[in-house]
Amino acid sequence: MPPFLSISRRTRRTPFTDRVTAEGVSAYTIYNHMLLPTVFRSVVEDYRHLKTAVQVWDVACERQIEIFGPQAAELVQMLTPRDLSDMVVGQCLYTPMVDETGGMLNDPVTVKLDEDRYWVSIADSDLLLWIKGLAVGFRLAVDVVEPDVSPLAIQGPRADDLAARVFGEEVRSIRFFRYKRLAFNGVDLVVARSGYSKQGGFEIYVEGGQHGEPLWDALFEAGRDLDVRAGCPNLIERIEAGMLSYGNDMTRANTPHECGLGRFCDTRSAIGCVGRDALLRVAKEGPLKQIRYLEIEGKAVPPCSEPWIVSAGDEPVGQITSAAWSPDFGTNVAIAMIGRDAWDEGSVVDVATPDGNRSARVRAGSWL
Amino acid sequence: MPPFLSISRRTRRTPFTDRVTAEGVSAYTIYNHMLLPTVFRSVVEDYRHLKTAVQVWDVACERQIEIFGPQAAELVQMLTPRDLSDMVVGQCLYTPMVDETGGMLNDPVTVKLDEDRYWVSIADSDLLLWIKGLAVGFRLAVDVVEPDVSPLAIQGPRADDLAARVFGEEVRSIRFFRYKRLAFNGVDLVVARSGYSKQGGFEIYVEGGQHGEPLWDALFEAGRDLDVRAGCPNLIERIEAGMLSYGNDMTRANTPHECGLGRFCDTRSAIGCVGRDALLRVAKEGPLKQIRYLEIEGKAVPPCSEPWIVSAGDEPVGQITSAAWSPDFGTNVAIAMIGRDAWDEGSVVDVATPDGNRSARVRAGSWL
Repeated sequence: MPPFLSISRRTRRTPFTDRVTAEGVSAYTIYNHMLLPTVFRSVVEDYRHLKTAVQVWDVACERQIEIFGPQAAELVQMLTPRDLSDMVVGQCLYTPMVDETGGMLNDPVTVKLDEDRYWVSIADSDLLLWIKGLAVGFRLAVDVVEPDVSPLAIQGPRADDLAARVFGEEVRSIRFFRYKRLAFNGVDLVVARSGYSKQGGFEIYVEGGQHGEPLWDALFEAGRDLDVRAGCPNLIERIEAGMLSYGNDMTRANTPHECGLGRFCDTRSAIGCVGRDALLRVAKEGPLKQIRYLEIEGKAVPPCSEPWIVSAGDEPVGQITSAAWSPDFGTNVAIAMIGRDAWDEGSVVDVATPDGNRSARVRAGSWL
Repeated sequence: MPPFLSISRRTRRTPFTDRVTAEGVSAYTIYNHMLLPTVFRSVVEDYRHLKTAVQVWDVACERQIEIFGPQAAELVQMLTPRDLSDMVVGQCLYTPMVDETGGMLNDPVTVKLDEDRYWVSIADSDLLLWIKGLAVGFRLAVDVVEPDVSPLAIQGPRADDLAARVFGEEVRSIRFFRYKRLAFNGVDLVVARSGYSKQGGFEIYVEGGQHGEPLWDALFEAGRDLDVRAGCPNLIERIEAGMLSYGNDMTRANTPHECGLGRFCDTRSAIGCVGRDALLRVAKEGPLKQIRYLEIEGKAVPPCSEPWIVSAGDEPVGQITSAAWSPDFGTNVAIAMIGRDAWDEGSVVDVATPDGNRSARVRAGSWL
């Protein structure tokens, strides 16, 4: 049995926590000092439902960092090796963010609200402190704050139908990684076509905690015949989808190129990025290890709560950082960081799981 | 029943986690992206034992930030309004750390290892990112890293006896908030007289995770007749002791003066502190609200998982952020942030607990 979680003010509740509790959440993790549900009925039952119906996710822990002011665009470009010079208002971009050594500090989605105003929708690290430190050190004319914005995700094959019932038919026309401002409860909310699954859907940036429960209730009311349920990022589905988790599959020790995020690095043209000097050589020569997707043979693996060593012959060649049994693919799906000697498709390696050694095979890509 | 905690690589294990598990930990919180035990037998049973015997605490989550290089002292002074110009090697200092607005970013203990080398032993925020941001922005000649150092605390009235059996009689001569380097397992470890309780004891900065289990085992072996047990920071005792918890009793919204930490702010002489300008006026005029200790009447209060509004008359005057029933004092002990109109000793206020309104009285100080 897993341990209990002690909850205090420090492990912040969200505008949706009372609703999440009423829907029977059974486990949480802590993410950006905030409650993030991990299980409702069971990981497998939640997975089945996510792939067939529609879920509402409390992802308020995707905290926003608002960067506002005349040098906002300049500061945002300092954070990422992705070239943002062509970014337009209404766009969201996945933006690896790196320190001066090219190490990953976070992998947020950056939302451009206006020419001088951005939200950075962060993964689990206090990126606010890095951004504030740079702003102070470089004496930039910007304001950097955590606004009262709590994302709520709608995910699953019926997400468009559900969202249309609450926000109107216009949601269907929102393109991938774009957003529109749509009315709810007397305010305009940023509604983006994005989310941490491959089942499709939206993230609503709920600006003002007082709109949280009314939106939750409206979605559940409107979605009753769609079998809407409370859900959360699902371990199995996100591995099948090949979606990385910052802190799990990558850390500050890794470059974006090691994380397979080189396609988001315009190292030549991202002038101003503080990690650019460090990444120029990496971009040219390529990394020595990289994220790979592996199938682990045998029965269901136990939970992966710390990295599992991967070996080829008797040499360590990497580590598995996320793993789960996939009912749909009938195998254990895993995400690993693998050295170049063993990373080719079809390579067979050994994995030291807590249950003993297993054989595993490197795939060309993810499952979904 | 509280929810379960899902554990992954992101919620990092410590060098002591296997031992903590073997000793029957029943609940955790997450602190600096790491497991921090909160309960073993029960909060009350752990409390009784802490006050009468000796406990070993896995506080590896007090991560260290190492600041090294010719401008290390300059950078450390930028972080805090406490004047560090007289700090000597061998000293530990409680150092409120603030941003450019004077808002609390963390309240670590700073350890001076050498004239150009410090450890900052942090509370729950990624202070590393703030320090790195400043170092990059101001182009300082420093290195800022998280070293492989995991504090283990020995706390309780028998702490000196237990520590002496493992580190020798010299530990008894360590003064409060000083440290000595003492031998264990073939290495010299920093052993400081400090810790997050008022029962006395030490924090061992275990440098090198491989020394964690040998040290844990040596302490349990040596302390068998002292009834040594695994423990953790205890909610009841730390409120009785008036020890603040960053993220619970104070946040980035608060100045050190609001937190009652004005005595650690040498705002006049802490030249270089980035928050100094913002704090000069606060230091002169005093805060509008401040930390106070309250006794809440009636039976045991429920867990305080979000701030409880405090009112006087019908006006809100503050909030309670930590509360627990104290068996030793036979009352509910609480920490609150209270406005100046209601903060005087003996003030009677109303508290909106989840169980309904309670009367409470402001005290002159904490209980221990």
